[in-house]
Amino acid sequence: MARFDAFRRVAERIVDLSSDYRLRDAQDYPRWYARPHPRPELLSEFVYGIPELHRDEIRDARYVAAAGCNATATVLALAPLFRRGLAGRVVVEVKAGSSEGGNTVSPASHHPERSGAVRSYRPTGHRHLAEIVQELGSTDIHFSATSIEMVRGILATCHVFLLESLTEKDLWKLYREHYAVEPFVRIVKERTGIYRYPEPKILSGSNYCDIGFERDPQTERVVVMSAIDNLMKGAAGQAVQCFNLMHDIPETTALDFPGLHPI
Amino acid sequence: MARFDAFRRVAERIVDLSSDYRLRDAQDYPRWYARPHPRPELLSEFVYGIPELHRDEIRDARYVAAAGCNATATVLALAPLFRRGLAGRVVVEVKAGSSEGGNTVSPASHHPERSGAVRSYRPTGHRHLAEIVQELGSTDIHFSATSIEMVRGILATCHVFLLESLTEKDLWKLYREHYAVEPFVRIVKERTGIYRYPEPKILSGSNYCDIGFERDPQTERVVVMSAIDNLMKGAAGQAVQCFNLMHDIPETTALDFPGLHPI
Amino acid sequence: MARFDAFRRVAERIVDLSSDYRLRDAQDYPRWYARPHPRPELLSEFVYGIPELHRDEIRDARYVAAAGCNATATVLALAPLFRRGLAGRVVVEVKAGSSEGGNTVSPASHHPERSGAVRSYRPTGHRHLAEIVQELGSTDIHFSATSIEMVRGILATCHVFLLESLTEKDLWKLYREHYAVEPFVRIVKERTGIYRYPEPKILSGSNYCDIGFERDPQTERVVVMSAIDNLMKGAAGQAVQCFNLMHDIPETTALDFPGLHPI
Amino acid sequence: MARFDAFRRVAERIVDLSSDYRLRDAQDYPRWYARPHPRPELLSEFVYGIPELHRDEIRDARYVAAAGCNATATVLALAPLFRRGLAGRVVVEVKAGSSEGGNTVSPASHHPERSGAVRSYRPTGHRHLAEIVQELGSTDIHFSATSIEMVRGILATCHVFLLESLTEKDLWKLYREHYAVEPFVRIVKERTGIYRYPEPKILSGSNYCDIGFERDPQTERVVVMSAIDNLMKGAAGQAVQCFNLMHDIPETTALDFPGLHPI
Repeated sequence: MARFDAFRRVAERIVDLSSDYRLRDAQDYPRWYARPHPRPELLSEFVYGIPELHRDEIRDARYVAAAGCNATATVLALAPLFRRGLAGRVVVEVKAGSSEGGNTVSPASHHPERSGAVRSYRPTGHRHLAEIVQELGSTDIHFSATSIEMVRGILATCHVFLLESLTEKDLWKLYREHYAVEPFVRIVKERTGIYRYPEPKILSGSNYCDIGFERDPQTERVVVMSAIDNLMKGAAGQAVQCFNLMHDIPETTALDFPGLHPI
Repeated sequence: MARFDAFRRVAERIVDLSSDYRLRDAQDYPRWYARPHPRPELLSEFVYGIPELHRDEIRDARYVAAAGCNATATVLALAPLFRRGLAGRVVVEVKAGSSEGGNTVSPASHHPERSGAVRSYRPTGHRHLAEIVQELGSTDIHFSATSIEMVRGILATCHVFLLESLTEKDLWKLYREHYAVEPFVRIVKERTGIYRYPEPKILSGSNYCDIGFERDPQTERVVVMSAIDNLMKGAAGQAVQCFNLMHDIPETTALDFPGLHPI
Repeated sequence: MARFDAFRRVAERIVDLSSDYRLRDAQDYPRWYARPHPRPELLSEFVYGIPELHRDEIRDARYVAAAGCNATATVLALAPLFRRGLAGRVVVEVKAGSSEGGNTVSPASHHPERSGAVRSYRPTGHRHLAEIVQELGSTDIHFSATSIEMVRGILATCHVFLLESLTEKDLWKLYREHYAVEPFVRIVKERTGIYRYPEPKILSGSNYCDIGFERDPQTERVVVMSAIDNLMKGAAGQAVQCFNLMHDIPETTALDFPGLHPI
Repeated sequence: MARFDAFRRVAERIVDLSSDYRLRDAQDYPRWYARPHPRPELLSEFVYGIPELHRDEIRDARYVAAAGCNATATVLALAPLFRRGLAGRVVVEVKAGSSEGGNTVSPASHHPERSGAVRSYRPTGHRHLAEIVQELGSTDIHFSATSIEMVRGILATCHVFLLESLTEKDLWKLYREHYAVEPFVRIVKERTGIYRYPEPKILSGSNYCDIGFERDPQTERVVVMSAIDNLMKGAAGQAVQCFNLMHDIPETTALDFPGLHPI
């Protein structure tokens, strides 16, 4: 944040990958980040950087705050339901890889400790929840993150209690319509095979967000799963996507890597 | 099941590790296992094999149906809250290793496919939920399982919406009292360090169920986490524990391996 | 092999990825593959598919036998030394991932067994040695392969006992000259940092063969290390490279993926 | 080393797990450790701590220098051949886990970098070679170590060029006789199955050194493979074994853990 003024003197447009400008309401910073925001006047100059939600604003934006990785996966999974007022209580369980912790060495990232871990990283109070609440407009969303054996990748498993009864067919229709023209969102839902639902491992290096869902026939719960590469659609890839929009370049430029299989 | 009559002719006591006799109500079999139970009269002869819940019955039992691995982790995590009538809606997210799938080869277990997977194994309709509902007495429990990169181990992350307001101190008291004398249940909850909450990897080969919890200060949610080795406390180890009780041998006999670190 | 005649009736040029036509001498088949070659007359119609060794022949070839993955890594590591007559006895230790075993399920590839394995796959008698001997022209080459926890990738560690004394500088010069213009061979040799020598993990999906070496100051041994992705430079990628040459397309077409980091 | 005098004032017997006193010849320290030994007079007071080679001396020893992990695996693999004067040139390739690097955090041990690595840790000049040469009495031994995806464990693959022609049967006889009464050395050599040769993963936590071999029918090479848990037989376990001998306690006391499968 200290260098923002220096950057904006030389850069016409900026995509900020930190969490410094993601929240619109300055009051959210003390609550979620345990410190007041030092430059609250800047918050309104930023657009929140998920193109699927704010494409037009991003096109016109001078400053974009690229979304958090967990928030991106969660918001894309849930937006179709919340936009139609269909979602009640939601519990989100994110499984995340070690690259989410950044490249700073720590005892927690030491390979003999981190290898094979299933570490309850943030059962409550995860900061990305602030972004999720802001974008989806509900406070009945509950979020936990667990670090697992993986370097890149996020799987968000979102348990949604529906306010209206929806069939699987309804859900298909809803998600297909919502993401019909999106270049980086795919609905992944198969009845057989190994890859029936979104799988982060085959997205390593790609900018896709894969979304699937399964309707619990016995309750009003639907489980929506979304997978991304946290370093691509969850960070640098999404930043490039925003950059492309801001500069009127085709949105998928430099983001055409489809991922590897097997991996 | 075909060989049960042969077995009981020669064995005075039997611990069955399959799911054949876990459910008391024969009607649950068509619902969860998609077939009627062929010997419903036998169900009442079995005791459900979680010693922490049915110790006295197991001591006197001729037949014990060892509990499912995911059910064991979930039931031990939640029993203290349900026994006091404190738990409302619950969402359980289990992270499981590949040994849960058994030793039969399949394309899904082929190393190049299974390695690094974060596979939504059973977002809804998991059969172990039948046992969980039976033991906890609530149908407002919602269960998903995700297969992750791990051979042994289960972490059950249980999001509980409390019916009464409880502080972390209340929860400490509740869990400590409930499991005070249990040889294989430990409360794991630290403020610092790498192993703040239950971690399945360090339980490989051990019969412990480690339980931790975190109270969300902003909502009525508490996250209860429990870890086991699915092949020990989730299968053979718990069966030995039951066997010890059934034969009046000290309960911890042959179950004293504490686990490895690092691993 | 059964379908080769059918294929060649419809295809003008063929790149065969099997081992059926890699060896020029029909007598090598009974020795290494335990069966006589059913169509020995075809062997002379094939060019061995490592472009760095047979570029001109591949350009003119109708049929190319794409090289084995371990053979590719080993031959590229050692060719500069053998072409100058500098290499005496060689011991090659290959570390390989599970995708080398193909996509057929087996107890050996079952995740709980294969995960974390350090399996001495073929301490002696590995079939790829036949190709290596053929291409390098020495029988004093000794080869072992060990399967490790990895899906894609090969690291070949080649211990070469030199026939002449060479300094590290001599070796730099030799390798640099030999591979100067090669688009897919890189010399990787750093004094500091994490990636001092070839590392297969960062080559996943790429067609590079990275080669490094370290001179033992106390003996006449030099250790030459080479890394490839066995499914790219060791299989499909090299086949595409051959295909490009055969069709006079720029050699790197469709092979420009640089790999991921971290991974 | 600084605290050795303090320790020996209070401890009757000492097992030192560092490399400070492993080499008998003080001249080896400047050569392999790049510094003169500050207390050369102490070297003769230490016995090298591999019980299978120095059992009687260890029983009587006041000070034992526990052997290096790679040296233990290599020396146990090769001693039967060297003791009979049967081994000529040897090339040893060790595959090692991340716990070998100790518990100090570094960029090289950061999970996103270390995970999945196949890192040529020390192609030449590995310090454990000094111990190996000392114990086996030959300088025609060549050693490399590669770090792979694993926390605990070592597999030493030793390529031995025999000075006399030996059949597999001869080798069986030789190894069986040599290690007949050893409680922690097992010959592992099967014709079928997944675990034909020593596999470090199933030794995690155990003090065994498993040894296997395969005779190359086409050359004078035999490949001897040995596996240990570097933290047990390669460190603490072997130290306890020495301690037991030094105190006339049964040698296997506290070392009876057989390992886990699957893992």
